[in-house]
Amino acid sequence: MSNNVFSQLPIEDYRKPDKKIEDLFWHRFSPRALSGEALTEEAVLTVLEAARFAPSAFNEQPWRFIYSLKDDKAWYETLDSLVEFNQSWAKKSGALLIVLAKNNFSQNNKVNHTAKFDTGAAWQNLALQARALGLVAHGMSGFDHEKLKEKFKISDDFSIIATIALGVPGDIDNLSEDLKKDEKPSGRFKVEKISSRDKFDF
Amino acid sequence: MSNNVFSQLPIEDYRKPDKKIEDLFWHRFSPRALSGEALTEEAVLTVLEAARFAPSAFNEQPWRFIYSLKDDKAWYETLDSLVEFNQSWAKKSGALLIVLAKNNFSQNNKVNHTAKFDTGAAWQNLALQARALGLVAHGMSGFDHEKLKEKFKISDDFSIIATIALGVPGDIDNLSEDLKKDEKPSGRFKVEKISSRDKFDF
Repeated sequence: MSNNVFSQLPIEDYRKPDKKIEDLFWHRFSPRALSGEALTEEAVLTVLEAARFAPSAFNEQPWRFIYSLKDDKAWYETLDSLVEFNQSWAKKSGALLIVLAKNNFSQNNKVNHTAKFDTGAAWQNLALQARALGLVAHGMSGFDHEKLKEKFKISDDFSIIATIALGVPGDIDNLSEDLKKDEKPSGRFKVEKISSRDKFDF
Repeated sequence: MSNNVFSQLPIEDYRKPDKKIEDLFWHRFSPRALSGEALTEEAVLTVLEAARFAPSAFNEQPWRFIYSLKDDKAWYETLDSLVEFNQSWAKKSGALLIVLAKNNFSQNNKVNHTAKFDTGAAWQNLALQARALGLVAHGMSGFDHEKLKEKFKISDDFSIIATIALGVPGDIDNLSEDLKKDEKPSGRFKVEKISSRDKFDF
């Protein structure tokens, strides 16, 4: 792991926060260079452990994760559900995850309007914990919902929101030319663009 | 700030992670004991700074935040939109935030199915950064959507997802008896309940 995308792209060369914040937030990004190494179940359970401490409305904890380790039958099935572009690099992941949100509250079966929002909070914990471990967690919205729903017999009580490629960071030189040119930490809007004092101004 | 809810409720007495994860994830919780002190705009902009580094589909960054500082006219208007229960403690916040998600992609105006999920990721960064600063960030889904939409003239292009009370932690002894008895870090499902290897099993 000495020569990998995290060391090859020193984060300070690509982005810096405008205020003093915890390093983990701006050090985390979403590379596609993965080594192809397997991950242990312990590593996956550790990032899931961080996920479970997210806040949620009425502490419903609507987030659910189906995970598969490289070479599990389910790993191939999840990979196969991804759009071709994502397959081209996620095939080097050590684990793949499917992110679900429970649509209704367990207590009263009423619609949980923040189920996806709360699940996003859990996902962010997962992504940050992965980075803290030196792992890549890359969220993907490019997948075939119906294929996943059918293959995994996912109940209508849950929304399939995202998939995640989790893995050991790889060498960017092993990426295809197309992937290589986009392999860098993405920029962000200034805080002025995403926030406004006292009024709606977007 | 020496005697406040964070020191009065030592986190280790209420929850512990089952795996070794970053402390910030399990140390963060959502107290209601706030001191009533004002926050500086700098403090609000610092937690928003963390929010902006969240990942999002196609790097859309759909999250938007309307913030108001204690005693701003908009702070009173936001407070007034909360359900009575939330008003009873959020009136001691130093800032209130309204969390919005842009419904469609800016590039092509197609529906962004992960807008709320991605906005939840930004919210989690905000909440974690607040805790790192020793501040409380407490998300609230109990508010009057229509009131906020009308008062702030929020465009139909955005969903109003949540409100956030941000503030200096207060002394739990200043809470009403009812609030005091619920003032503790909430528990979480075990990782076995929220995750499953290779199959849908929830």
